[in-house]
Amino acid sequence: MELFEKHEARFSAARKACKERFHWSPFPEAAAQVADGEALNAEAEQAFAALCSTHFELNLPGVVDRVGEEVSPYTCKPLGISYPRCEPDELFNAAEAAMPDWAALKPEQRIGLLLEVIDALEKKVFLISKAVMHTAGQSPNMSFTGSGANALDRAIEALVYAYEAMRFTPDTAYWERQFGKATISLDKTYRLVPRGVAVCFTCASFPTWNAWPSMMASLATGNPVIVKPHPGSVLPMALSVKCFREVLAANGQNPDLVTLQLDTRDEPLGKILVKHPQTAIVDFTGSAQFGSWVEQNAHPALCFTETAGVNTVVLDSCKDLDAVIRALATTLCMFSAQMCTSPQNIYLPKQGVREGDNWIPASEVRQRLADAVQAIASNPRKAAMILATIQSPETETLLDHLAGQAEVILPSTRYEHPDYPNARTRTPLMLSVNKQQRDLYLGERFGPVSFVIDCDDAGDALQQATQDVREAGGLTAFLYSTDERFIAQAEQAYARAGSQLTINLTGPMPLNFAAAYSDFHVTGLNPAGNASLTELGFVAQRFRITQSRRPSGDA
Amino acid sequence: MELFEKHEARFSAARKACKERFHWSPFPEAAAQVADGEALNAEAEQAFAALCSTHFELNLPGVVDRVGEEVSPYTCKPLGISYPRCEPDELFNAAEAAMPDWAALKPEQRIGLLLEVIDALEKKVFLISKAVMHTAGQSPNMSFTGSGANALDRAIEALVYAYEAMRFTPDTAYWERQFGKATISLDKTYRLVPRGVAVCFTCASFPTWNAWPSMMASLATGNPVIVKPHPGSVLPMALSVKCFREVLAANGQNPDLVTLQLDTRDEPLGKILVKHPQTAIVDFTGSAQFGSWVEQNAHPALCFTETAGVNTVVLDSCKDLDAVIRALATTLCMFSAQMCTSPQNIYLPKQGVREGDNWIPASEVRQRLADAVQAIASNPRKAAMILATIQSPETETLLDHLAGQAEVILPSTRYEHPDYPNARTRTPLMLSVNKQQRDLYLGERFGPVSFVIDCDDAGDALQQATQDVREAGGLTAFLYSTDERFIAQAEQAYARAGSQLTINLTGPMPLNFAAAYSDFHVTGLNPAGNASLTELGFVAQRFRITQSRRPSGDA
Repeated sequence: MELFEKHEARFSAARKACKERFHWSPFPEAAAQVADGEALNAEAEQAFAALCSTHFELNLPGVVDRVGEEVSPYTCKPLGISYPRCEPDELFNAAEAAMPDWAALKPEQRIGLLLEVIDALEKKVFLISKAVMHTAGQSPNMSFTGSGANALDRAIEALVYAYEAMRFTPDTAYWERQFGKATISLDKTYRLVPRGVAVCFTCASFPTWNAWPSMMASLATGNPVIVKPHPGSVLPMALSVKCFREVLAANGQNPDLVTLQLDTRDEPLGKILVKHPQTAIVDFTGSAQFGSWVEQNAHPALCFTETAGVNTVVLDSCKDLDAVIRALATTLCMFSAQMCTSPQNIYLPKQGVREGDNWIPASEVRQRLADAVQAIASNPRKAAMILATIQSPETETLLDHLAGQAEVILPSTRYEHPDYPNARTRTPLMLSVNKQQRDLYLGERFGPVSFVIDCDDAGDALQQATQDVREAGGLTAFLYSTDERFIAQAEQAYARAGSQLTINLTGPMPLNFAAAYSDFHVTGLNPAGNASLTELGFVAQRFRITQSRRPSGDA
Repeated sequence: MELFEKHEARFSAARKACKERFHWSPFPEAAAQVADGEALNAEAEQAFAALCSTHFELNLPGVVDRVGEEVSPYTCKPLGISYPRCEPDELFNAAEAAMPDWAALKPEQRIGLLLEVIDALEKKVFLISKAVMHTAGQSPNMSFTGSGANALDRAIEALVYAYEAMRFTPDTAYWERQFGKATISLDKTYRLVPRGVAVCFTCASFPTWNAWPSMMASLATGNPVIVKPHPGSVLPMALSVKCFREVLAANGQNPDLVTLQLDTRDEPLGKILVKHPQTAIVDFTGSAQFGSWVEQNAHPALCFTETAGVNTVVLDSCKDLDAVIRALATTLCMFSAQMCTSPQNIYLPKQGVREGDNWIPASEVRQRLADAVQAIASNPRKAAMILATIQSPETETLLDHLAGQAEVILPSTRYEHPDYPNARTRTPLMLSVNKQQRDLYLGERFGPVSFVIDCDDAGDALQQATQDVREAGGLTAFLYSTDERFIAQAEQAYARAGSQLTINLTGPMPLNFAAAYSDFHVTGLNPAGNASLTELGFVAQRFRITQSRRPSGDA
């Protein structure tokens, strides 16, 4: 319990934040806020360079060979890092062998140790953020904040929920009642039993933010975890896994509680891992297509998915259209819309948008939005900070294809990255469409593309948007309206459709920012995923309760 | 909130019992403990007689025709009750139409109303117990206690867990943080959104005990429920559904939140209901075979199952073998072992059982157990009270078949029921088997049959028993041992295998009695079911959380 006590102040604060859902974080959000941030950053830069073109050292069981096919979106050159590829059966067996001792610990002991892992991960955040930058293609800022600090927060949040779910059941109970004239008194003991081996699939563009909480949720409840990273973004997870293993080993636990299963694009292992007889839990972040296969095929394993959908914007009316346009443009550009929360479909009433008492014509709204996006895209410093790079060459192909399918409001081109001349970059593509072109925008088009959709009026916009969410999924939604009745209607409609709704937000906060301890991520009510970060349903089934009872005084 | 306040004292007591897991119940366990019990019983007798050979009145939507094929195991005559059979689509549409208003209530409002349903069900317990008796075939005592009082307790328990899961998330939050130099402050609203229509399958032999908690769990979290009873045991659920509907309607709610879907043995609707596109939740109690199909095919619906398995007894050593034998014999006889918790497989070491310092040979243990069962079976009054009747003629066929497959320790015959000369009765069949005959006993053989299995020694007995549970499932397990090391080993092994273990229990409490608020029923760790009554995992996913957020002061 020592480690739990060591971290108790932080953990108690996190528990309170989860209950009351205010802003809280123990982590600096920017490298500049860290003491010695500059030195640590330079050190991480060197450490990253030293990792490139080498064998990544990770002492895993059952190593068969080495693979590695990562390419930096910043240099478009292979990282040249090779990772051990293991025989899956060996990883499962090692994980199962490690489980009983881990499961025998008290929840507080596991959580104490996992809070120690949080500390260790925090120390690695500078290096992990380099790894995220050169695999996922995020900007230096986002890779530090979104893939570092915010991911650590979501990881602690998962520990909180695991703790709340586990502590609900007491360790023991005394039970006594009459049967006829006799009194039967029983001592009861309850045990929390883990499900078994969890397989955690991580995605190419934002690996740590989803992976860390999933790993924490499984581990806190006693389950070992095999991490299966996307072959394009291995390094952030290899560093994470190494960190977990080191802290486990340093604290007398079997490091095989956390292992890494590599595969390659040519020889994918996903389906084999999902259908593996020893798989008890699957956490999946990735494409809607494979995610849907996972949901259908994971049984008898538990399955938690976050995939993708159409994130919608409904424009009705506002006080200050410029502020709306700025907020929307920035969010459309953020990491080239390669976030599962990025808006994609903008539902625009034919009569335009009312600003105060004035109607701004639809054509003008479209143009001003395009201009605002263009202002970011055409300023290389800004573009580098906000758009960053494109993770996958497939995204470029998609953009070129889509540009030929509808009326282009804003074409997509490369922009010159000021620091990385070979970076894979693309400015946002904006298309104007009508409802007859629904096939084009019904579903996530991964990357910097948005659709401005002609709607009859605001009511039609809301109806179309929520219908599209119900059919194709959706995580986030954004509404601008000064009409309280319409807002209430939208809240109701999006609650049914299952998108998390942000209303009338302008200013410097990215519209799609999801705060740990406060914002629920994914609802599970539509095809964009069945799990939510984080609520009791994300943790409560990862362990089961067994009991034994015997007459009091018998022992 | 009025109704919640009305029932608050009871509900608070139930919440405390769930947290601390002591004995508690607000319900009298026997008809004799009820004021006017005798009169109420006589009244129920008349009410039941009046229901027979009539049209059961239930004003459901989409009625197509009337069906009913129940036969009383006590008289072996058809009850002659016909029930409305509905078009499933109409029930789903009616349920969905009723859902929004129900979902819009606060959790306390729904739970208050459902506690009112509990009161109404309690008033019907005398009649419902007649219905259970003449469909499931339970004894008058068990049908009052097990299918009445204890089922009401499990129903309240489900309400408690639903409440605990829902109250974890606040209605609103205030969130504020810096982005750059700006302060962003947001008001957040959280909504609990039900999954959708729940289909609750109930079994022939013990319908209410599982159904009421499942119905309560779904309804408390905002979901409507369609009950699909086993065609052989409709009346207990028809009365229950009527009761829910009356209380809903009396309190201004749409009664179509709870409906009844009949089917017949010749035209079963089970698979259609599970695969129905509007099915969001499936609760299933019934056969392992169909349960397994349900688990595999319910996706995208959530699915909670309780099926069957082998409940095991491991004999090692004891202080008083007579007391052990008496307790085992009674439990083997209880409702002719037609309970999912009844023991079936008795693992007996070759060298026998140690009683104090004496070894009682295996052959003697076997014989004394058979004699004790025979003593119950051969006393018609006792047999009627304990064995009661056989729900299904298929059970008789099974017993006759099994009798030819192994060495019979105790043959199964009819016994003369003192009050119902035509009752379908069978005394328990006991077979002696060895491990080579594993196919015979690996899996539930529904009805009064037990297998005494030759084992090398106590360690082998434990190993065999837990292995059988892992493969074939198992809900309960019973151990007799005076060796603390062996007990600890068994607790560990059964925790992994997932059977709830009772150690060294003798005396008047039925060994397989599972107390609401204290004993967890089913672990979800083996093929005997994936759900547990009741823990957070049983409720937490029946609803989802959506949110909306907007700048503070914007509204």
